[in-house]
Amino acid sequence: MRVNGKQYRTVWLEGSTVRMINQLLLPHSFKIYSAKNYRETANAIRTMVVRGAGAIGATAGFAMAQAVLGAKKGNYKKYIEDALRTIKSTRPTAQNLFYAVDRVYSLIKDEKNLSMAKKLAVDTANAIADEDADACKKIGESGEKLIRDNCSILTHCNAGWLAFVDYGSALSPVYMAARNNKKVFVYVDETRPRCQGSKLTSWELNNEKIPNAIIADNAAGFYMHQGKIDLVITGADRIAANGDTANKIGTYEKAVLAKENNIPFYIAAPSSTIDIKTKAGKDIPIEERPEDEVLYIGGIDEKNRERRIRVAPNLSKAKNPAFDVTPAKYIRGIITEKGIIKADEDAIRALF
Amino acid sequence: MRVNGKQYRTVWLEGSTVRMINQLLLPHSFKIYSAKNYRETANAIRTMVVRGAGAIGATAGFAMAQAVLGAKKGNYKKYIEDALRTIKSTRPTAQNLFYAVDRVYSLIKDEKNLSMAKKLAVDTANAIADEDADACKKIGESGEKLIRDNCSILTHCNAGWLAFVDYGSALSPVYMAARNNKKVFVYVDETRPRCQGSKLTSWELNNEKIPNAIIADNAAGFYMHQGKIDLVITGADRIAANGDTANKIGTYEKAVLAKENNIPFYIAAPSSTIDIKTKAGKDIPIEERPEDEVLYIGGIDEKNRERRIRVAPNLSKAKNPAFDVTPAKYIRGIITEKGIIKADEDAIRALF
Repeated sequence: MRVNGKQYRTVWLEGSTVRMINQLLLPHSFKIYSAKNYRETANAIRTMVVRGAGAIGATAGFAMAQAVLGAKKGNYKKYIEDALRTIKSTRPTAQNLFYAVDRVYSLIKDEKNLSMAKKLAVDTANAIADEDADACKKIGESGEKLIRDNCSILTHCNAGWLAFVDYGSALSPVYMAARNNKKVFVYVDETRPRCQGSKLTSWELNNEKIPNAIIADNAAGFYMHQGKIDLVITGADRIAANGDTANKIGTYEKAVLAKENNIPFYIAAPSSTIDIKTKAGKDIPIEERPEDEVLYIGGIDEKNRERRIRVAPNLSKAKNPAFDVTPAKYIRGIITEKGIIKADEDAIRALF
Repeated sequence: MRVNGKQYRTVWLEGSTVRMINQLLLPHSFKIYSAKNYRETANAIRTMVVRGAGAIGATAGFAMAQAVLGAKKGNYKKYIEDALRTIKSTRPTAQNLFYAVDRVYSLIKDEKNLSMAKKLAVDTANAIADEDADACKKIGESGEKLIRDNCSILTHCNAGWLAFVDYGSALSPVYMAARNNKKVFVYVDETRPRCQGSKLTSWELNNEKIPNAIIADNAAGFYMHQGKIDLVITGADRIAANGDTANKIGTYEKAVLAKENNIPFYIAAPSSTIDIKTKAGKDIPIEERPEDEVLYIGGIDEKNRERRIRVAPNLSKAKNPAFDVTPAKYIRGIITEKGIIKADEDAIRALF
């Protein structure tokens, strides 16, 4: 997708260097971060230079390719297995990360010819990234049908291309609709506490010249009740076998409000997000993150310097659940790369 | 109520000067703001040095008293009518403001004796403030019955004593319960964009030593769904004759979520908040406030200096409706100084 008019992906491999958009600096500064070896790339995942399920997966695949590229004949197997452990330890709950690392490893682990292994690792890592972009493009093509001309869409958090390699999940249908010359307007939930909506989603949409307005998370219900929102699309962190969906905190609120106001609420996600082994939402553990994310907030001051300030009183405490679970009954459908399916066990099982 | 152990009211008149707690500086700094004439007081209302239905009402009453105190024999009527328009124009959704201004005005408008008018205006403004504090105390006594021992209460925005002259509306029952030695825990919605929850409600509760945690507005639904919240109480900016209630943006969301999770949702407000001439919620105008409230946020830096930072990308726009309307069907009851009533036309008409 475009940044200042130029095409980018979130992460890519150049020779043996992994380059990625430094998401820690967005939206106030756009810089490419270069990781010269698998250790630097693993560190970039750990410190959230790159974030989002698909983008993490592709980056982890590239890190494994770097490990193979860096391996010497003598220490080949040990070097790569050390790398595998290092990369897997960066974000212990990221499903796409394990998938990418294991896929590269399983293909090269019995390859005796080192230069063949190197080629195979690079090709596989590139394939993982391409497949992610391709799946997201197909999500866009499926979801685009839901978007009429002059449609107003609400989204929560960032499930745009920055969370994947390209196109994104929840935003991909919006991008496709805009390319098909449909007029769209996006209400962007700020998405406290980390403000991925205002910081990332709005930035993406600005770069694609799609009209949008950031709203306080509190205002989404107001605009739904006023009839200003035609459609709600969000991403997903994990979808259970029955359609219950874990996503950024606040998604459940928007889903309930959409149902109450008779507005279709869709989840957009590659089918790899569906965890068929997880039966229902209640089986998904919810991460409680540090209270400082609620008590403090980051941004830029009048001199464009990054600053972090404390919003709450010094004595105050906070609670900070990072995700919530939206029961399937609130979800009109799941937009996948294989089409739009119902959020129920039969439809989900039929997908696999 | 207490600030660092000392008793305060939110606003009071000393001679011809209106003194008020400067709520723009809270929670990081506690200072008293002095307004020497009605224009300064109107400006304090407009710029939200003072905010909250009851506190605005009392302040507006004091501003009218200042106008009468400042009027000269020759220009008496015109001066006071100019003041009335100036004061009324500060906050378009504030029912208590109109009530207080009109009440002072109606008493003095035909008073030929200027010094008598001045005394009458001051006495009336003081009576409005005293009645507000008294009504809030009674709201606490009524609402306290809804709070069991070991009760967890969610509140939105600040409808504590800072929003009134004393005690508050939504928090008054909490304070009464705590004084009656009931154990309570308050989930405090941060209440973006202006963060009155984290900045004011949590600060109030800390000063009264009531356990509380700030949560992102997005997390309220999560805690309701988890069964962690027993009761929701918010304030009101205006209640229509049919029980529909305008309050801080996001109140509607919490009310819908409470209903969906079978949690009682109450509005707490003095009966002066009820505008019997407004038939239904759709007749209440909603103030759209500057987008900068969403794009920027204030707090203190690591050196305890007040700072305002930009959260959103430079090119981004925002929409910022300040209030929403909660239809009566989501409201279990209205806690008033005359008892708890149903949120319907019959019960409301019976109150007057």
